[in-house]
Amino acid sequence: MKRVYNFSAGPSMLPEAALKKAAEEMLCHGNSGMSVMEMSHRSKSYEAIIQGAEALLRELMDIPDNYKVLFLQGGASSQFAMVPLNLMGKRKKTSADYVITGQWAKKAAQEAARFGKVNKVASSEDKVYNYIPELDKSKFDPDAAYFHITSNNTIYGTRYTTLPDTGSVPLVSDMSSCILSEVVDVTKFGLIYAGAQKNMGPAGVTVVIIRDDLIGDALEITPTMFRYDIHAENGSMYNTPPTYSVYMLGLVLEWLKSIGGIPAMQKINEEKAKILYDFLDSSSLFKGTVVKKDRSLMNIPFVTGSEELDAKFVREAKERGFENLKGHRTVGGMRASIYNAMPKEGVVALVEFMKEFERMNKIV
Amino acid sequence: MKRVYNFSAGPSMLPEAALKKAAEEMLCHGNSGMSVMEMSHRSKSYEAIIQGAEALLRELMDIPDNYKVLFLQGGASSQFAMVPLNLMGKRKKTSADYVITGQWAKKAAQEAARFGKVNKVASSEDKVYNYIPELDKSKFDPDAAYFHITSNNTIYGTRYTTLPDTGSVPLVSDMSSCILSEVVDVTKFGLIYAGAQKNMGPAGVTVVIIRDDLIGDALEITPTMFRYDIHAENGSMYNTPPTYSVYMLGLVLEWLKSIGGIPAMQKINEEKAKILYDFLDSSSLFKGTVVKKDRSLMNIPFVTGSEELDAKFVREAKERGFENLKGHRTVGGMRASIYNAMPKEGVVALVEFMKEFERMNKIV
Repeated sequence: MKRVYNFSAGPSMLPEAALKKAAEEMLCHGNSGMSVMEMSHRSKSYEAIIQGAEALLRELMDIPDNYKVLFLQGGASSQFAMVPLNLMGKRKKTSADYVITGQWAKKAAQEAARFGKVNKVASSEDKVYNYIPELDKSKFDPDAAYFHITSNNTIYGTRYTTLPDTGSVPLVSDMSSCILSEVVDVTKFGLIYAGAQKNMGPAGVTVVIIRDDLIGDALEITPTMFRYDIHAENGSMYNTPPTYSVYMLGLVLEWLKSIGGIPAMQKINEEKAKILYDFLDSSSLFKGTVVKKDRSLMNIPFVTGSEELDAKFVREAKERGFENLKGHRTVGGMRASIYNAMPKEGVVALVEFMKEFERMNKIV
Repeated sequence: MKRVYNFSAGPSMLPEAALKKAAEEMLCHGNSGMSVMEMSHRSKSYEAIIQGAEALLRELMDIPDNYKVLFLQGGASSQFAMVPLNLMGKRKKTSADYVITGQWAKKAAQEAARFGKVNKVASSEDKVYNYIPELDKSKFDPDAAYFHITSNNTIYGTRYTTLPDTGSVPLVSDMSSCILSEVVDVTKFGLIYAGAQKNMGPAGVTVVIIRDDLIGDALEITPTMFRYDIHAENGSMYNTPPTYSVYMLGLVLEWLKSIGGIPAMQKINEEKAKILYDFLDSSSLFKGTVVKKDRSLMNIPFVTGSEELDAKFVREAKERGFENLKGHRTVGGMRASIYNAMPKEGVVALVEFMKEFERMNKIV
C-alpha cells in the first residue's frame, strides 16, 4: 500500500526515516537484545535514549542551561492545569494574563480560572479567531504570575509573528502545533509546552521547557504528578516515562538535525506555506479564511464558499490520496495541516489537485 | 543480535508476535496508507483500533457493562491522586482504607492523605513487606469512600491470594504488575487500575476499569484531566489519547487471546512460577525472600545470602543473556520478573543457569 499525503491536524505525518528506523529496531535496539518498549527506564540503554533526546532538543532549539526540559504525559490539556497550579503558587501571585486566540487558548484560560484569577487581555472570538488581536499593554497585569499565549492556533490557522512584551512577567506559550517549525528565542519565554503529536513524535509525550526560577512552590492542592519540581528533580523519571514515545521523538529530532535543523526546516516550511497561500490568493474558487498578516505556517484553513463543493473536494481529494483535509467543525471547509514531516511534494501535489478541481467546478 | 531473556520489573518483555506485527505495520497500517502513529485519533481507522482494544479487554477480563474502561496517561502514580480526588468527593465520604504492602501502596496512601483522611488498616513494613498482612475487619472503616489494595507488589514479590471482604465499601486495586496474569472477578472491585508497561504494552498508557456509580462528583480542586467523568463521557478521547500505546496494547491482547485467554495464561504463569519456586525451595545456595503463601506469580525475589555472590550472579547471568535480574535496592539480591510475555523456556533456562552457578559456587 502506497503511503498517503496525510494533512491531519494531529496526530500527523512523521518523517519516513524515523518510522523506518523504528521498524528496523522494533525487535532489537542496538546490541540490547530487546525492543525499546521492553527496556527498563532505569537501564543504561534507555538512559542513553532519553538523555540523547534531551541533548538533541537542547541543541536544535538552543535551550539555555537555566531551563529544564521535561518529558511528561497528559498532553497540552494537562498543561492547562499544571501551568496555573505551579506558577500561581510561585511568589504568591494568583492571577495570570491570557490571550484568547482559539478554542485551546480558551480551554487553557478556563482551567486556570479554576485555580486563580484570569485576566483576559484580548480575544479574537468575534471573528471565529481568524486573526491575532492587537495587544494593548495597558491591559497587561504587571503583577500577573505569567502571561499565556498560544503561539500557533491549530484549528483557526493563525500564528503570532511578534511576541508580546511582557516585561518581567514570564511569557508562557502553548507551542503544540508549531514547535520546531521555525526559529524561536527560548530566552523570551518562561515556559514553553507542546504535545508531541504534531511536529515531534507520537501522541503520549508532552515537552515542557521551563526556566529554573519558575520551578517550585506549586499550590498545595497540586497532585504530585502535576508538580514541575518533582519531574525536574527526577529528570522526568519520577515515575516511568512514556519510554517509546520519547525514543520516537529522538528519532524525529535526528531527522530534523540531518536536514539542517530548525533554520533549514523553517525555510522549507515557509516555501510550503507560500505555495499554498499563493494559490489561495489567486484562486477563483478557493480562499483562505485567515487575515494575511497572521497566517500560520502549519495549519491552512480554506473554503470554497459552498458547503457542497467543500464536501465534494474533501471526498475527491481522499480518493486521490490526500487524507484528513476536512476542516474543523467550528470553521468548516478544509484545513491542510502541513507540519514539518509533510514534504514539499505533498503541498505541490495538493495544489495541482486543487487547480484541477477548480477547473472542473467553475462557478458559472 | 539475538533477543535476550529480559527479567525487567517493567517496562518489560512483550510478546514477539505483537512486536513483529508492529514492525510490519509501522509505515502503513492496513489500507490506511499511514502509520498508526500518524493517524488522527478522530479517524475511522483509529476508532477501530481503540474500540477494538477495549472490546478485547472486556472480553478477556469479562468486564460487565456497568464498568467503564478508560485509557489514560500518567501511570499508576497519577492514579494515586485520581482515585482519592474522584472517589473521596463521591457521596461526601472523605476517608479511605489502605493496606500498606510495599513502597507503591505507601506512595498511594501518602498521596491520598493530601486530599482526605487515610486509615491504614494494616502494614507489612516490619518485615520489608515480605508478606501480605492478615486483615482485621474491626479496623475497616464502614464509612470509607473506598478500600485500597495493591494486588501484586512488584518490588517485594507478594500477592493477595484472597480478597478482603469490604462489604459495601468499594474495593480499589492497583493491578499494575498482575493484570491479565490470572483470572480476576471484576465485579468484586469498584475500580481497578494498571500501568500497561508490565503485562499489557508499552509505558504511557494506564488502564482504569471503574464501576459506573463511582464516576462523578470529583473534588472541586481536581484538574479536569484528572476527572474520571470527563474521560468516561468522552470515551477516553477528551484529549488526544496515547494512540500508539493503545494500539500496542491491542496487539498484546490479540496475542493473549490467541493462546487461550487469561485462564490459559494463568496456567502457564503458575507453571513458570512453580519451576522457579521449586528450585529455590530445594537450592542450597539461593532462597526466596517471601513468605510462601503470599508468593507472587510475577515477581520473584531471591538471594544467596552473600552480597558478593549476588553481584557475581547478576553479572554472569547478564553475560549469558539473562537481563535485569538485579533486585530492588530495598530488598537486595535478585528479582526475576516473569510477566506474561516471558516464555516458559526463559524460566527453565534461568533455573538451569542457577543450578550451574550453584555448583560452581558451593559455599564450603
